[in-house]
Amino acid sequence: MPRISESTVRRLSHYYRVLEEVEDEGKRLISSHRLAEREGVTSAQVRKDLSCFGSFGRRGLGYNVAHLRKELGAILGLDRRWRVAVVGAGNLGTALMLYRGFEKQGFDVVAAFDRDPERIGQRLGELVVRDIAELAPVAKDGGFDMGVIATPVRAAQEVADALVAAGVRGILNLAPRKLFVPSHVTLRTMDMTVEFESLSFALHSLAPPVRRRRPRA
Amino acid sequence: MPRISESTVRRLSHYYRVLEEVEDEGKRLISSHRLAEREGVTSAQVRKDLSCFGSFGRRGLGYNVAHLRKELGAILGLDRRWRVAVVGAGNLGTALMLYRGFEKQGFDVVAAFDRDPERIGQRLGELVVRDIAELAPVAKDGGFDMGVIATPVRAAQEVADALVAAGVRGILNLAPRKLFVPSHVTLRTMDMTVEFESLSFALHSLAPPVRRRRPRA
Repeated sequence: MPRISESTVRRLSHYYRVLEEVEDEGKRLISSHRLAEREGVTSAQVRKDLSCFGSFGRRGLGYNVAHLRKELGAILGLDRRWRVAVVGAGNLGTALMLYRGFEKQGFDVVAAFDRDPERIGQRLGELVVRDIAELAPVAKDGGFDMGVIATPVRAAQEVADALVAAGVRGILNLAPRKLFVPSHVTLRTMDMTVEFESLSFALHSLAPPVRRRRPRA
Repeated sequence: MPRISESTVRRLSHYYRVLEEVEDEGKRLISSHRLAEREGVTSAQVRKDLSCFGSFGRRGLGYNVAHLRKELGAILGLDRRWRVAVVGAGNLGTALMLYRGFEKQGFDVVAAFDRDPERIGQRLGELVVRDIAELAPVAKDGGFDMGVIATPVRAAQEVADALVAAGVRGILNLAPRKLFVPSHVTLRTMDMTVEFESLSFALHSLAPPVRRRRPRA
């Protein structure tokens, strides 16, 4: 299998989501053209992305929706459940732990850690926040597969180091800070502050005169 | 001012965050080298990014931390407050509205909309969920600057269209779906499901034998 780029994997996730929807709508076949259209890419891109993993469609017929969804699910590792630990039980971590919206896709938040004595022992939904000192033994015991960093910025790299040392190989960082991990660990960063600031930049720099002159209704 | 790329704006956000930290630590000057190091980029990149907006540092002296932070804040539009409306008061939207963690950076969630009669009128923190039918009049009345889409996938494009029609020019989409907006509107997408799936892909495809053979403690 060739080396798959991060952006290809993201598109596979999107195709998977489209196929789920189309399957719910009761459709049996989908063309690469239609799959492409829903994602705003070309059908050549869809075919190229899928060809990395084998041959799924038939020329002129398109893809079998249920089959392709199942195959993509297996490629993305969605044919099993993943156990997620959230580190940092502050506002954002708490929101995440209570959210539970990722369970449908196979991601279960199974553990929560913090180092604040006031938070340790606190109940959040079905979870109890544990002392961060327990992170390593729990991880080494196979207690979870992925770690989500929801700590303040200052603690983020330290927590990443602790996760790596405990053998965790998949980390999602929600702290607005670039983190460094060894190459055998996969790190993704999702930073809502950066997204908001990129909107404020656009609104502020591209169109201030229009905004300021807009009459009040 | 030259056209600024999305990735430059993201790096400016990161520099801004580093400067906030360094200012908190009481430091007065920072070199482009150190600013670069904290973000994992080269110092040439830092100088290039900043040169788009003017001349900030002095050769051999580095940047004045407080001054550069203030300038970057102004460039990013953080010298004012932004009013954010969340559309979709389900789990994710609710978590966001209750989170309030973005206020520190100037983003206030000031309105929430849903179309589910059971959710309309519900109180969430200091907000009351409003009927989505009120979105256009509230937006046109200058009630908010940015919209966050936290609806189920199926409704996301329709909500984006409604926001655009109401004159909203900055949208953050949290639904796992590619959305289409006219070019005068800035759209950012943040999709935690895609991030989780990119981790499961990596863990699943790159190292299955190691994971499966790992002895249980």
